[in-house]
Amino acid sequence: MEVLEAIKKRRSIRQFTDQDVPKEFLLKILDAGRFAPSGLNNQPWRFLVIRKQDPRKPLLAQCTKYSHIVQRANVLIVVFLDKASSYHQLKDAQAIGACIQNMLLTICDLGLGAVWLGEILNQEEQVHQVLGTDANQLGLMAVIALGYPDQRGSSQRKPLDQLLVEELC
Amino acid sequence: MEVLEAIKKRRSIRQFTDQDVPKEFLLKILDAGRFAPSGLNNQPWRFLVIRKQDPRKPLLAQCTKYSHIVQRANVLIVVFLDKASSYHQLKDAQAIGACIQNMLLTICDLGLGAVWLGEILNQEEQVHQVLGTDANQLGLMAVIALGYPDQRGSSQRKPLDQLLVEELC
Repeated sequence: MEVLEAIKKRRSIRQFTDQDVPKEFLLKILDAGRFAPSGLNNQPWRFLVIRKQDPRKPLLAQCTKYSHIVQRANVLIVVFLDKASSYHQLKDAQAIGACIQNMLLTICDLGLGAVWLGEILNQEEQVHQVLGTDANQLGLMAVIALGYPDQRGSSQRKPLDQLLVEELC
Repeated sequence: MEVLEAIKKRRSIRQFTDQDVPKEFLLKILDAGRFAPSGLNNQPWRFLVIRKQDPRKPLLAQCTKYSHIVQRANVLIVVFLDKASSYHQLKDAQAIGACIQNMLLTICDLGLGAVWLGEILNQEEQVHQVLGTDANQLGLMAVIALGYPDQRGSSQRKPLDQLLVEELC
């Protein structure tokens, strides 16, 4: 898929079919995340992939009010900040956002769908307990729920003139 | 260009030729930024475009230790957070990162080059003075310096196994 097509086509997908996402697709998605830009090239992103059969999946679903999405998703990519690599709170968060967008665009390109879950950050402590991860080392940044789409996404965008501080010359 | 090709090919470009970036390209780049995902779909990004002939360009160059890059760039896209739209510091920063990545991928797709400047955030007050923007309304998030590339980018990435918290099953 062409870059601009993927950028414009991609929408949050919250309903998934039962079809399994192949491991080779997951490798492509994670690889795309890896190529994001970051301040000082510190690459602060870390990934933990939870697949359908993982016994932690139903427990992770209990960590968010969007349990139904987590339960239905075929795969969850838990995105962390590596605290040892972190150098600037705002810039690291932006880099993680760029990394997630690379993965979302690749997911779209592969004919899959995903939603970027942020509400689960409110239950970060519980997430660490469920996953067995160390809160001193890893900061929870997002969970990407993905699978084969069972809906068409839709969401509106503001027109460009509302986003420009000054008219473009 | 294919999505994965752009993701892997894109690198920071800090040297530019004198060729002007057409306005229609700028509209495509900004349009790509507009389609990024954001928490609650709040679309908190705002853009101010400084072109070559803008008298504020040399003054903006004085706001960063990377003056030579700002001076040589054909166009600068100043990316702001709209404070009135903001709902969550971390998630808004991530959304802005996704928005910037959409623009950087589109820049690469159009045969242009760019670098994401973050150091200038240290001089935010001075940037607002130079641009005539209101610090109560807009938070400086980044400056993207772009133009036709006069170098090949290069930067390494950690291998995937160093980014995985657990081996992928």
